[in-house]
Amino acid sequence: MATAARTEVLADEEVQVHETKAELFHGLDVVFFAGREGAKGASRQWAETAIKAGAYCIDNGSDFRLYPDVPLVVPEVNMDVVTRDDKLIASPNCSTIQLVVALAPLHRFATLKRLVVATYQSVSGWGQKAMEELQSQLRQLVAGEPVTFDPSVFARPIGLDCIPHIDRFSHAGYTKEELKLVNETRKILDAPELLITATTVRVPVMIGHAEAVNAEFKCPINADQAREILSDPAKAPGVVLIDGPTDDPNAVAVRGAPEELRYPTQCDILRDEWKDMTLVGRVRDDETVDYGLNLWVVADNLRKGAATNVVQIAEAMIERGFFEGKV
Amino acid sequence: MATAARTEVLADEEVQVHETKAELFHGLDVVFFAGREGAKGASRQWAETAIKAGAYCIDNGSDFRLYPDVPLVVPEVNMDVVTRDDKLIASPNCSTIQLVVALAPLHRFATLKRLVVATYQSVSGWGQKAMEELQSQLRQLVAGEPVTFDPSVFARPIGLDCIPHIDRFSHAGYTKEELKLVNETRKILDAPELLITATTVRVPVMIGHAEAVNAEFKCPINADQAREILSDPAKAPGVVLIDGPTDDPNAVAVRGAPEELRYPTQCDILRDEWKDMTLVGRVRDDETVDYGLNLWVVADNLRKGAATNVVQIAEAMIERGFFEGKV
Repeated sequence: MATAARTEVLADEEVQVHETKAELFHGLDVVFFAGREGAKGASRQWAETAIKAGAYCIDNGSDFRLYPDVPLVVPEVNMDVVTRDDKLIASPNCSTIQLVVALAPLHRFATLKRLVVATYQSVSGWGQKAMEELQSQLRQLVAGEPVTFDPSVFARPIGLDCIPHIDRFSHAGYTKEELKLVNETRKILDAPELLITATTVRVPVMIGHAEAVNAEFKCPINADQAREILSDPAKAPGVVLIDGPTDDPNAVAVRGAPEELRYPTQCDILRDEWKDMTLVGRVRDDETVDYGLNLWVVADNLRKGAATNVVQIAEAMIERGFFEGKV
Repeated sequence: MATAARTEVLADEEVQVHETKAELFHGLDVVFFAGREGAKGASRQWAETAIKAGAYCIDNGSDFRLYPDVPLVVPEVNMDVVTRDDKLIASPNCSTIQLVVALAPLHRFATLKRLVVATYQSVSGWGQKAMEELQSQLRQLVAGEPVTFDPSVFARPIGLDCIPHIDRFSHAGYTKEELKLVNETRKILDAPELLITATTVRVPVMIGHAEAVNAEFKCPINADQAREILSDPAKAPGVVLIDGPTDDPNAVAVRGAPEELRYPTQCDILRDEWKDMTLVGRVRDDETVDYGLNLWVVADNLRKGAATNVVQIAEAMIERGFFEGKV
């Protein structure tokens, strides 16, 4: 094997990082890609080589997500579209994953018609530098110093402001993040006619994305039915419903007592038992349409929104016997 | 005059604060109330006395906002409903004011049908203690200390998290803040059948509220027309349109150059020229309905969302000759 280019510490373990070379793919069952979009994306450069060497490729990048012959997969939702012959599988964008995990069970029950989504996305979605940027700005704010910012990270200081601008601007004034949410959701739910419109916003939170979701359905559904579906792990795998029954405003003050929480927040995904789950709360009937619901959806953008989903795809492939491995 | 109970410094000026007594209302043209809701609200206690003493009463509190015989007023939108005989005038909730300032000009053009609103509301909307709460939590975060919180302020730490819970929970899982947005908007726009649904969320920002607004209209309107209307002070008083024409992702990095800003954020309302304005950006066609738009609306919740609106009501009354005064 080649000499390691560098050593990284991941989860307290030293990991040797090698430069990618064609011969390194030989004998691998599965290769994970986490590449940038465009011509230089990791999967664009290397997936073909890895597939020729006999490996399955799972891509966390956005290069191939909308390719008709590449399955775009959230295991809880549409693992059934993957066959043994699909050598390249794409994992969706973070904000899409939590949305479809929460909505797919309701879509199966009542068929989604239209979605209006507003997001509250943490800085970690833009990488390590973005987290350092917010941390540095917090220090400046606390010290009473002028807030400085690196425009190559966010267009403005994120400490403390909400920036309605994630990824680049694209068609008709929408950002790429907004268009990803539209197009990827349609593909995963196999609902090309589903109407979706979104505004995606960066908020001064370190980890975890939240989404205010207004969902209109074609068939009858109400908040009670939605809560029943979302609280059943068989019907809504990967979902934790946190929708407190109490109207006592003091009840929510007690953290560490899940049964008393009335709604999830981004900080809840730091709990060990919820770190890979999609948390749903604030389930309400929207009486302004025939069959409408409002929901609040939260997940860890780094775990379920990225790494966890990719690992879960590989685990599901092992379970289906595509290759051998330990789940 | 009675002895001052205490002295406060407001805008570098010492102001003497007296305990409210009936005789203090004599000879006043106008009295401003900023009271709590419910039986102990300032206007509930004193408005009748002030009116009997001959004063006009302008109430920033929520006690009388939905009373059919009390005008609920945003001067740019519906000052025409106020007559000389209206002795008590209510000023709306912060999140409602900026919404109607932005939407009324579009409503006049194309008649609103349905609104889906998600808010990003700063902590100052919950008072001085809430700002201190966030400041204290920022210090703890920067120092690496455990974050503590006072559950009488927010149900959870707001540093750094988004909390989908503003004011108390009310009917059908909606909060009072959400219901205010629905009911007050309908009243101000004189559109009792307007469909509105909302999710209101507290974000870790000190001052300024933002709103992601999805608006469906009954008559044709598109983003270009909306931008034209919103950029015309005669058609959209109180509005500043900040909707950058450039697709250069570096252009937004330049602060202090309004023509290069592509969208407003909460921090923009700290600029002197915009502090009393409602800033609108991210105007986009929503192709999922016949006539739909997405908008991003920002204003200072303490100024236009509260104090400024109340003062502007008084100024408009002076201009109409209801009482004498200097505008």
